[in-house]
Amino acid sequence: MKDPVAKTLAGDLGAAATLMRALDDDLPGARAALRAIYPHGGRAFVVGVTGAPGVGKSTLVDALVGAARARGERVAVVAVDPSSPFSGGALLGDRVRMQRHALDDGVFIRSLATRGQQGGLSRSTTATVAVLDAVGFPLVFVETVGAGQAEIDVADATDAVIVVTAPGLGDEVQALKAGLLEIADVLVVNKGDRDGADRAIADLTTMLALAAFPSRPGEPRRTPPALIRASATAGTGVGDIMAALDALRAAPVAEREARRRRQAVRQITALVGEQARATARAAIGTEDAPGPLAATVNQVAARKLDPWSAAEALTTHSR
Amino acid sequence: MKDPVAKTLAGDLGAAATLMRALDDDLPGARAALRAIYPHGGRAFVVGVTGAPGVGKSTLVDALVGAARARGERVAVVAVDPSSPFSGGALLGDRVRMQRHALDDGVFIRSLATRGQQGGLSRSTTATVAVLDAVGFPLVFVETVGAGQAEIDVADATDAVIVVTAPGLGDEVQALKAGLLEIADVLVVNKGDRDGADRAIADLTTMLALAAFPSRPGEPRRTPPALIRASATAGTGVGDIMAALDALRAAPVAEREARRRRQAVRQITALVGEQARATARAAIGTEDAPGPLAATVNQVAARKLDPWSAAEALTTHSR
Repeated sequence: MKDPVAKTLAGDLGAAATLMRALDDDLPGARAALRAIYPHGGRAFVVGVTGAPGVGKSTLVDALVGAARARGERVAVVAVDPSSPFSGGALLGDRVRMQRHALDDGVFIRSLATRGQQGGLSRSTTATVAVLDAVGFPLVFVETVGAGQAEIDVADATDAVIVVTAPGLGDEVQALKAGLLEIADVLVVNKGDRDGADRAIADLTTMLALAAFPSRPGEPRRTPPALIRASATAGTGVGDIMAALDALRAAPVAEREARRRRQAVRQITALVGEQARATARAAIGTEDAPGPLAATVNQVAARKLDPWSAAEALTTHSR
Repeated sequence: MKDPVAKTLAGDLGAAATLMRALDDDLPGARAALRAIYPHGGRAFVVGVTGAPGVGKSTLVDALVGAARARGERVAVVAVDPSSPFSGGALLGDRVRMQRHALDDGVFIRSLATRGQQGGLSRSTTATVAVLDAVGFPLVFVETVGAGQAEIDVADATDAVIVVTAPGLGDEVQALKAGLLEIADVLVVNKGDRDGADRAIADLTTMLALAAFPSRPGEPRRTPPALIRASATAGTGVGDIMAALDALRAAPVAEREARRRRQAVRQITALVGEQARATARAAIGTEDAPGPLAATVNQVAARKLDPWSAAEALTTHSR
């Protein structure tokens, strides 16, 4: 890579793509380039799109990309694969995404495997978003799947979160219980022309009315999310979603800064935890190449020591 | 608590329940009691039951509990709520679970909120399972919901994992892509009398045949999971699942010990990461009570510093 930092900051998409691949593969120099680029970012509006499998997130992102392009805005998409954390996503092969934008220079799409590490979303997604921000995309969608930690992480990496649900997926209320309501800035009932959509809208309206409205501990009370009925395939509701995003984008600077500070706290603590786990794994080593603390693990496996005391021993060791 | 360790080890369920609540609330002495109890465990066979919302996990666990009771085995259930990680599960109130076992002394049911912290499942679940093991339950089911990190964690806390799917939930193959196939020892198609069950069985059979069979990096190749069609409501297939569990339970000691060593590594590294995050959070403090490294976070929020360098600064600080 010849000066990937300057090239990326000058808007060179090829250089940015090379840098993203280098970051994925953890090549020498990639992290230093990322660190150099980071302070130049912060201009992009980053939108997370999340929800259970089958709600039509990809189709919705496709429609939102179309809406952004229709008004001339360049847009990037980071698709965090629902792939295996162990096999790295090769199980069913790569999907071909959003073909209709494939030849549009104003659209950049990048797929990431989650790779299974705890905090994995935050690491690769934060880095990818930082590069897309630095190379000049004003709007970035981050699509994640499932219900769990990844969805909580996405709130830490984005400026706004769209939570997508759909009628007929069993109990959508149950899906929303998995922490999604708290991170939603926009709540979309996709496939809004299907049976059950009225009921889903009614249920969610009740839930939103009953909710306190919940916020994360230590954070200011949040405004309830906008509730929007849409059909990504028919194109209905997409304009409403874009309008809701524009309203969030126009949030007062103080509000946005407070959110970014909270994000910074969570990103940094996640990185610290990741680093500590890596150090501990190195001290344990493998069965073939045991490290200085392999014996501690064997004691736990044999129930001669509890894992909490072992963790303390490892923490002390790494100091 | 008067000598909760001795009482729990003597099989006193009331003392065990008190200890579990004390651990949840992190009361003084609770962790010390847990550490004292831990080495006396290791006899229970701990089975994780996981899958997407709506597949009927609770009903299946209920049926498995019934089967265990029918042969006279005492059994405990740890239900890890799909509740909000922020609101701690109060959003829709507690569910009343498995009423038919409510008056059975041989069944103990405990609900845990996930509480949203990364590694949260490993912490509270590991502790609860350790107490249930110590108080003498030979069989413990751990039910978790969703598709994501929690499901991977459950493999670290259990001796065997049942992955439950069901026809008609959109794309069950997609749900399985989220890492579940790799952790499954038993793969159950629940609601097996419904339309689409034949197709689901056929699809999963193909997937299992095509899979390598995947295993986690650095671990020995695994035996493909048993694939069982069941209907928890009709009671079909439940005997087959119990038989598959009994076969796993009879695994050679060396195999079980290898699994427990791998679990120990992951539990310990997760705890180390958790501790490091907590230390970092304390060093950052809150907006009202900033810690020594609050300024570092403000620099990241203002894009004057990147989060990776900030994490290094925090890691160095805590040494």
